[in-house]
Amino acid sequence: MASRRTITGFSNPLVKFLRSLRDKKHRKREKRFLAEGLRLLTDARECGKVPEILVMATGREAHPLLDALEAAVEKAGGEIVEMDVDILAKVTGKDNPQAVAGVFAEFDTRLSTIDRDAAPIWLVAQALRDPGNLGTMLRTGDAVGAGGLILIDDCADPFSVEAVRASMGAIFTQKLATARWEEFLPWLRSGSGQLVAASLRDSTDYRTAPYAAPCFLMVGNESQGLPAAYEEACDLRVTMPMLGRADSLNAAVAGAVLAYEALAHLREV
Amino acid sequence: MASRRTITGFSNPLVKFLRSLRDKKHRKREKRFLAEGLRLLTDARECGKVPEILVMATGREAHPLLDALEAAVEKAGGEIVEMDVDILAKVTGKDNPQAVAGVFAEFDTRLSTIDRDAAPIWLVAQALRDPGNLGTMLRTGDAVGAGGLILIDDCADPFSVEAVRASMGAIFTQKLATARWEEFLPWLRSGSGQLVAASLRDSTDYRTAPYAAPCFLMVGNESQGLPAAYEEACDLRVTMPMLGRADSLNAAVAGAVLAYEALAHLREV
Repeated sequence: MASRRTITGFSNPLVKFLRSLRDKKHRKREKRFLAEGLRLLTDARECGKVPEILVMATGREAHPLLDALEAAVEKAGGEIVEMDVDILAKVTGKDNPQAVAGVFAEFDTRLSTIDRDAAPIWLVAQALRDPGNLGTMLRTGDAVGAGGLILIDDCADPFSVEAVRASMGAIFTQKLATARWEEFLPWLRSGSGQLVAASLRDSTDYRTAPYAAPCFLMVGNESQGLPAAYEEACDLRVTMPMLGRADSLNAAVAGAVLAYEALAHLREV
Repeated sequence: MASRRTITGFSNPLVKFLRSLRDKKHRKREKRFLAEGLRLLTDARECGKVPEILVMATGREAHPLLDALEAAVEKAGGEIVEMDVDILAKVTGKDNPQAVAGVFAEFDTRLSTIDRDAAPIWLVAQALRDPGNLGTMLRTGDAVGAGGLILIDDCADPFSVEAVRASMGAIFTQKLATARWEEFLPWLRSGSGQLVAASLRDSTDYRTAPYAAPCFLMVGNESQGLPAAYEEACDLRVTMPMLGRADSLNAAVAGAVLAYEALAHLREV
């Protein structure tokens, strides 16, 4: 059975715990993250991911999706916590009595958990620093039927509130792995897989490139792009037209344009 | 000749003025906006847009691009202001002695300033609320050789610091117009132009749609999408594959995937 309790004070340790999950250091120590909003939590539930702790406002209006969430948490033996709406606002940052939040255990993000043959496309981001871009890449990956997102080197934290929010639920549908380049490349070469770099250097037109599944589409850091050595290790370097003054696209945009192109090619085969 | 002065106090009215430009209400009243960073200001200069006021740190290191900026502002009769690096940090929010900022007059964003035949592609965003998405659309527009971005109904402010930053300089290369839908549609129909909606409703595959220049590619609000009536007024409704759980893409991503597809078609003609 799930435990149920009501919190009435701002200084309650659980309130402090929930707030601390906005901070990366605390997330890493607790191995827990926060997802907010009924839609996101419903996406999670429908993917079989149930929060360990479900937080709601006392006096909220009933909602069938909230009922379903509560039932799922109860069944899983999780904790259901109600708190005054002004305390909840301190947790979620939103002054909304319909607000709801859940605490999830972070997923296992080792490369070894990835089954590369499970999907024709995988997205790879190197030193991606913006959590919004990271979440957007997860969302795009979901849309193109990618298997997941592999984060190379020092990226933004995929479990940050911003990344989770920008993923629009894809944090629960896409596999996530984190690895150093030195670990990723041998792993990739230990099986099938074409590594494709979005590149500005000597490269192939992204419209005519010979994409092959499983296709690993890699974009680089927002300001530096990919290191030259990483690009050289790729099977394919592709480029998109840059007709204006700028010499690069937003990283999440470049990944999406490339992913949709690869998807169209791979579906034609 | 440009005026030159050095500011040493936090309470200086110019410091307050600069800080106030982070606020939309003040921007609209002053009809001025702030752009930050040497790269952005250099982009502006190379597009012939010179700040009315250039703000730099005293004791900064010399840089040829800074020299060029100073010379341009001097030539245009603008104002050059130096301030202690800790005061500058209050203006730019960045603790960086290389920081530099410029105050620009807002551009004329009336529809009537747009020459639709000047470019094969125009991006259109309706009720786009996220300034990052807005700036990213400007950046994408630059890359695909679009003429500019037309903002329909209540959008984020394109002159916000966040939008200007995300545009990566495209705020200075892309035309910008703002209009209500009731104004936009008659304007569009008063000349040539194909209006294309990124749509989830009954629609054509975006890969095979018959794009025609000047092609106006429209995306809707981040959470609502386009109003049904707006889509019905379009010449073409196109959709991208959505193979996962999510039913939509990030708005800036949808616009970019569509823009690159239209570009490829229009270049083949």
